[in-house]
Amino acid sequence: MRLVVIGGVAAGMSAAARARRMDARLEIVVLEKGPVISYGACGLPYFVEGRVREAAQLMVYTPEYFRKERKVDVRTNARVVAVSHARREVALESGERIGYDRLIFATGARCCTKGVAGASQPHVFTLHTLDDAERMRGFLREKRPRRAVVIGAGYIGLEAADALRRNGLAVTVLERSAYALLREDAEFTQAVGRQLAAHGVELRLGAAVAAIDPDSVAGVPCEMVVLAAGFQPNVELAAELGAELGRSGAIRTDDRMETTVRGIFAAGDCAEVRHLVTGRPVYLPLGTTANKTGRVAGANAAGGRERFAGIVGTSIVGIFGMAFATTGLSAAEARREGFAAVAARITANAKPRYFRGAPTTVELIADRGSRRLLGGSVIGEDGAAGRIDVIATALASRMLLEDFEQLDLAYSPPFAPTWDPVLIAAQQLRKEM
Amino acid sequence: MRLVVIGGVAAGMSAAARARRMDARLEIVVLEKGPVISYGACGLPYFVEGRVREAAQLMVYTPEYFRKERKVDVRTNARVVAVSHARREVALESGERIGYDRLIFATGARCCTKGVAGASQPHVFTLHTLDDAERMRGFLREKRPRRAVVIGAGYIGLEAADALRRNGLAVTVLERSAYALLREDAEFTQAVGRQLAAHGVELRLGAAVAAIDPDSVAGVPCEMVVLAAGFQPNVELAAELGAELGRSGAIRTDDRMETTVRGIFAAGDCAEVRHLVTGRPVYLPLGTTANKTGRVAGANAAGGRERFAGIVGTSIVGIFGMAFATTGLSAAEARREGFAAVAARITANAKPRYFRGAPTTVELIADRGSRRLLGGSVIGEDGAAGRIDVIATALASRMLLEDFEQLDLAYSPPFAPTWDPVLIAAQQLRKEM
Repeated sequence: MRLVVIGGVAAGMSAAARARRMDARLEIVVLEKGPVISYGACGLPYFVEGRVREAAQLMVYTPEYFRKERKVDVRTNARVVAVSHARREVALESGERIGYDRLIFATGARCCTKGVAGASQPHVFTLHTLDDAERMRGFLREKRPRRAVVIGAGYIGLEAADALRRNGLAVTVLERSAYALLREDAEFTQAVGRQLAAHGVELRLGAAVAAIDPDSVAGVPCEMVVLAAGFQPNVELAAELGAELGRSGAIRTDDRMETTVRGIFAAGDCAEVRHLVTGRPVYLPLGTTANKTGRVAGANAAGGRERFAGIVGTSIVGIFGMAFATTGLSAAEARREGFAAVAARITANAKPRYFRGAPTTVELIADRGSRRLLGGSVIGEDGAAGRIDVIATALASRMLLEDFEQLDLAYSPPFAPTWDPVLIAAQQLRKEM
Repeated sequence: MRLVVIGGVAAGMSAAARARRMDARLEIVVLEKGPVISYGACGLPYFVEGRVREAAQLMVYTPEYFRKERKVDVRTNARVVAVSHARREVALESGERIGYDRLIFATGARCCTKGVAGASQPHVFTLHTLDDAERMRGFLREKRPRRAVVIGAGYIGLEAADALRRNGLAVTVLERSAYALLREDAEFTQAVGRQLAAHGVELRLGAAVAAIDPDSVAGVPCEMVVLAAGFQPNVELAAELGAELGRSGAIRTDDRMETTVRGIFAAGDCAEVRHLVTGRPVYLPLGTTANKTGRVAGANAAGGRERFAGIVGTSIVGIFGMAFATTGLSAAEARREGFAAVAARITANAKPRYFRGAPTTVELIADRGSRRLLGGSVIGEDGAAGRIDVIATALASRMLLEDFEQLDLAYSPPFAPTWDPVLIAAQQLRKEM
C-alpha cells in the first residue's frame, strides 16, 4: 500500500507524519517541487527585515530527518506534471512515474500575479518561498533601493511593508479593495492606515494596479516592488484527476479532507475548508489550517476516521509593534451572509490603570435573533493574541453573547484588568442588541 | 422603593451602579464599614512592593462620584451591626436605623486568623485593605526588617513574598497544605517552589502554624509576618437575617444571586457561586467574580431578570515575572469529583524557535468517558493569560477535547507558534485517552 503526497511543506509534511503514526508499514512518498521541505513561510518577512538572521533558522525539518526518523521517502526538486487516476500514477517532470494507492494533494498556492503586466522584472518580488526571501534580501543589500511599492494590503503585504520600512526604505502600499487585511471593516482599515502612517508608510486604498513600470507603479516612483496581491490555489493536477473544485476555485473537500474522488485527499493552501460561523466552504490559506488539515488528511489516507470540524478565520498581524487581529465575520460580512448583525466597538486598557496598560480596541459582532457571537477584532500592543483567541474559542463553540459576557477570565494586575476589554465589549454589545 | 447594599467595594459598588442603570428612580443606599469604597484590592501587593507609588492610584471611584454621577447615597465608616428582616431595617454602629425594601449583602470576606496565636502583634500584617498595605509599607520604611515569614502560599501570600523579596528581605513562605495556590497538583506546586527558590524565597509545605512568636514563626527567625492563610466570608448578618449558608460556609445563592430569603441578594466574597465544571456551589472569592455577581444582584434587586451562569475558577499569579495560571479542576480534584480524569502536561515554546519564545508548560485534563475538558494550567513568562483564558472559555462551553484540539487560534511569529502550546497539550492528551 503506497501513499503519495504531492507537496512537502506544512500540509504535506503534517500529512506524511500523521499517516506514518497511524500505519507503521504504509509506504509513504512525498514529492516536493522545490529544493526544501517544511520551512516557516510566515517567518519570511522577518528574514527580509533581518530580525531572523539565517534562512536556516526558518527550516523546521530536513528531508533526511523524515527519511531516517519517519521512514518517509521525501523527494525534493520532484515536480509532478501529470496524474492519471485510471492508472493510479503520477508523472514527474523527469519522466519518472510513481504509482499510488492513496493520494494527498498538498500542492499549496502561488502568488497572484495575473492581470499585472511587468511582474517578471528583476526588481519585482513575491514573498512566498525561502528563495523569494533570499533574493529580496540580496537585492536590498546590493542595490540599496530607497523607495518600495507593496501591492496588496493583506498580511504578507503589510509585514513586507513593515520589514522594508525598518530597513530605511520609503514604502507605499497599494490595495485594490477598500479594506486592509481582507477584513470588510472600514474602522479596522482606518486603524491599520493610521498605524502605517505613524511609521511613515502610506496606504492607498482602491488602488488597482494594471502594470508595473521599471521605475514606478501607478505613478508612485520606486526602485523595488513587492507583489502580495493574494494567493491562488494550485489545483490543476487535482482538476486533471477529476476532483471537483469549489466556488472559491480551491479543491472541494468533505470533513475528512477527502476530495470528491474516493481515496484522494487534499489539505492546506490548495483546499477549501468549512467556516464554522457560516457553515459554508471557504478558501482561507493559512499555515495553522494547513498543519491541521494535513494531519486529518494523513490520518484518513492511512485508514483512520478523523474529522476536521472547520475554521473560524482567525488571523493576527504585527505592524510596527501593534497587533491587528480578527476572527469570524465583520459586521458587513455577517450581513451579507444573512445575519442580523449588531456590532459594538470599545477601547479600554489592557491592564489596570495603575499598571499603565496600553489601550486595546475590541469589536464584537453578534446575531440579533439567535444572540450568537459571529466575529470580533482586537487591536493592541499587549495581549491581543490571547484576546482574539478567546473570541475564536467562543465562535468555535457557538457561544451566546450572554455567556461570553460572563466568561471567567484570568485577572491579576500584571496581566489584565478586572474587566477585560473583551468583556467590556460584550457589555456594550448587549446594550446595542 | 429603597435598595440597601451592605458593603461598598467591588461587588457592592457594581451592584449599586447596575441597579441605578436598571431603575433611575430607585433609592439606593450603600453602607461601607471602611473609609473608602471601590479600591483595587488586587493591586495591594504592588503598592507594598513600590511599583504602584501612591495609594490613590488604587482608588477606582470616590463616594462623591457615586453620589453625584449615579445618585447613589454612599456612606463610608457606616458599619451595619444588626439586621431585622421582620422590620425590614438594618442598624448601624452609630445607632441609626435604615429601612429597606430590597437588600444586597456585599459584605466581603476577612483574612483567616483563627487558630493562630499572636496574630495581633504589631509586626504581623494581613493584606486585604488599603489600610493594611499602607501600614505594611510604613513598617518596611521605618523598621527596615531583614527577614519576613509569609503564612499561606495562596496568591496573596506569593505576591506578598515577591513584593518583600524585591524590597531586599529574606522571605520564607509557610504553607499548611501540600500545595501552592490552592491547586491540588504536585507538579504545579513544584514549579512554583522552583521559581520561588530561583529568586531566593523558600517555600515550606505541610507547615502548619499555631503561633507567631515575637521574633520567629515555626522556628524561622523574622522581624515581620504576613498572614495570608485564606479568607473567611462575612456571613454573620446574612445568617442573622435567616439566609441559609452553603456547605462552604458562604451565603447560598441561586443563579439570580438571590439568597434563600426572597428579595435578599448576596454577591462577591461573601457568597457561593456555581462551578460550571462540577455544577456544584463553591466559595472562590475573586475580584472578577465579585464584579460580575454584583452586577447580576444589582440588576435583579432592581427588578431585572438576569442570571449568573457560574465560574470555572480561573486564576493567574505573577511570581518574579513568571505567570502561574489555573482554571477548572486539577486531575486530583477531578477524580475526587468522580470524573475519570486523564491529564497531559507538555512544555513548548510560546513563539517560533527563530523568535526565541520562552518555554510554556501547559497541562490539560479531560474526562475519559465524555471526553469533556475539565481543567488546565499554564506556566510561562509570555502569553500565559491568553492561553489560560482560551482553556477557561472552552470549559465554560463544555468543549470536547477533539474540538479543542482543532481550535483556530491566531498565529504569527511575533505572537505565537504554528502549533500553540495549548494545542500541543491537547494532542498529547488525546494520545493518553
